[in-house]
Amino acid sequence: MNFEMICDAAKRIDGHARKTPILSSPFLDEIAGRRVFVKAECLQHTGSFKFRGAWSAVSALSPEQIKAGVIAFSSGNHAQGVALAAREHGAPAVIIMPSNAPAIKIANTRALGAEVVLYDRATEDRDALGAQLAAERGLNLIKPFDEPLVIAGQGTCGLEIAEELGTLTADVMVCCGGGGLTSGIALALAEKAPGLRVRPAEPEGFDDVKRSLQSGKIERNAALDGSLCDAIATPQPGDITFPILKKHCGPGVAVSEDECLRAMGVAFERLKIVVEPGGAAALAAALYHPDEFTGDAVVAVATGGNVDPSIFKRALDTLV
Amino acid sequence: MNFEMICDAAKRIDGHARKTPILSSPFLDEIAGRRVFVKAECLQHTGSFKFRGAWSAVSALSPEQIKAGVIAFSSGNHAQGVALAAREHGAPAVIIMPSNAPAIKIANTRALGAEVVLYDRATEDRDALGAQLAAERGLNLIKPFDEPLVIAGQGTCGLEIAEELGTLTADVMVCCGGGGLTSGIALALAEKAPGLRVRPAEPEGFDDVKRSLQSGKIERNAALDGSLCDAIATPQPGDITFPILKKHCGPGVAVSEDECLRAMGVAFERLKIVVEPGGAAALAAALYHPDEFTGDAVVAVATGGNVDPSIFKRALDTLV
Repeated sequence: MNFEMICDAAKRIDGHARKTPILSSPFLDEIAGRRVFVKAECLQHTGSFKFRGAWSAVSALSPEQIKAGVIAFSSGNHAQGVALAAREHGAPAVIIMPSNAPAIKIANTRALGAEVVLYDRATEDRDALGAQLAAERGLNLIKPFDEPLVIAGQGTCGLEIAEELGTLTADVMVCCGGGGLTSGIALALAEKAPGLRVRPAEPEGFDDVKRSLQSGKIERNAALDGSLCDAIATPQPGDITFPILKKHCGPGVAVSEDECLRAMGVAFERLKIVVEPGGAAALAAALYHPDEFTGDAVVAVATGGNVDPSIFKRALDTLV
Repeated sequence: MNFEMICDAAKRIDGHARKTPILSSPFLDEIAGRRVFVKAECLQHTGSFKFRGAWSAVSALSPEQIKAGVIAFSSGNHAQGVALAAREHGAPAVIIMPSNAPAIKIANTRALGAEVVLYDRATEDRDALGAQLAAERGLNLIKPFDEPLVIAGQGTCGLEIAEELGTLTADVMVCCGGGGLTSGIALALAEKAPGLRVRPAEPEGFDDVKRSLQSGKIERNAALDGSLCDAIATPQPGDITFPILKKHCGPGVAVSEDECLRAMGVAFERLKIVVEPGGAAALAAALYHPDEFTGDAVVAVATGGNVDPSIFKRALDTLV
């Protein structure tokens, strides 16, 4: 896994993934006490950065592999990314999703032409289920984060941040589940914008990456389920992503669910973007944990916007 | 008023206004029965395209005029655009707003440093009030639409549409109040992308531009107030904008308030952007009036996103 792979992924993705805008507002700056830049990956195709890694991985398959099809397991955003990337490549797609994933994510994945297989997150092992289906049907597994081609795809987001903000000295908060996006951006910035330091943002109780960076070894979350931030409630950092995170990232920041909802409300009011709870963790850290930063600017990646209306209403209610 | 003025405005605006993205989703294409492209001007600074025209006008003032300050009357979006443009130029700003404008727009205008003067839309004449205040304090009036420098600034949005979609043959739906944005885009596209034809979108009951284009002369709305689409509920097209609209635009489309709310819901769900009712009229036309279009693509300008949470919840409720 290296920087060159990100450059290669950028070539494959060019013209397919959207170059997302970096937004700002004087109202956010006032809350945070410093300049705030928000990389709006919620505006990516399928509503999250996951399309980048999915396209990167699917586009690297051989024609025979494309014909056989792909399989992925995901709480939702990776599912949609893989489904669309597969469809645009003409590849069949099977997606294994937890039965308690947000309804909108399950429905969207099906609408994008994928076959959805549901499993119980508390009692079933999705990895074993995926391996079995892949073997039975000859499908190619597209892992959600611990896969170099996927990390390379997510890293293209980092290239775009470097292009626009590369002269800044600032922390770059990234909503972090298994660490695919965080490690990809970290690799890209280490090469292209050394003044920008990546730091993972996670929900309280699911801060495995923060704790892993503190202890220097992979730590696991006690709970595997029950976070409002479903998109980034991953059990532990990946075997490939963690060494990259350890080498390049600053300390993690854990945010409360309430802070995520408030950040979603601010993003609605001031940036006019829709962010899901897990996608708002980085912005929540930037806005509501000012003491954990130094310097006069902070960058937050708003990683996804696939949120059920009922939860979005809770975010709107924080504005009153 | 000519194309060169738009090019001049583009130079003054460069680096200040945001180049907004053009978004799309297969789900929108399916609803409309053709490709749908959405120019997301809600992501512009201050949450609407109005910042373009405001910057264009304020940046053309002399240093003495900047020092004296500016005045504007607006239901909200022009107010915020002028307030921010004035602040960034160091100019004092007085904004005359209807007392029943959305609370968020009044609050934002004040927060951007402007002095807000409220008036009653049903009983008071905002033009007379503005003229009086301007005379008393030596302020420079920045008209909301019937002003060449403002039209030129709004036209820069058209240059960006031409740059990205200029090879298409399609209708470009633009949410239309007094016609500043619509005429500016029309002038830009007539020169740069003759395959793209502008058409105004308006709320039912406030379709003065549609009726004016039909009759060939300026028609006035019966009601002056009471539209959910407050941003584009203007009494009649402007004396400068109407001849441009007449020369360059195709027939107008009138949409219902319910269609605007549904379009806001779809924009939330599929594009992850926040659009206000008046800013959703063009998308509503594109999605829900397919019989009024020919061709396999349509472009809709989502003109603004400054909407109170209570109204946005009504849009979310259309998704269930």
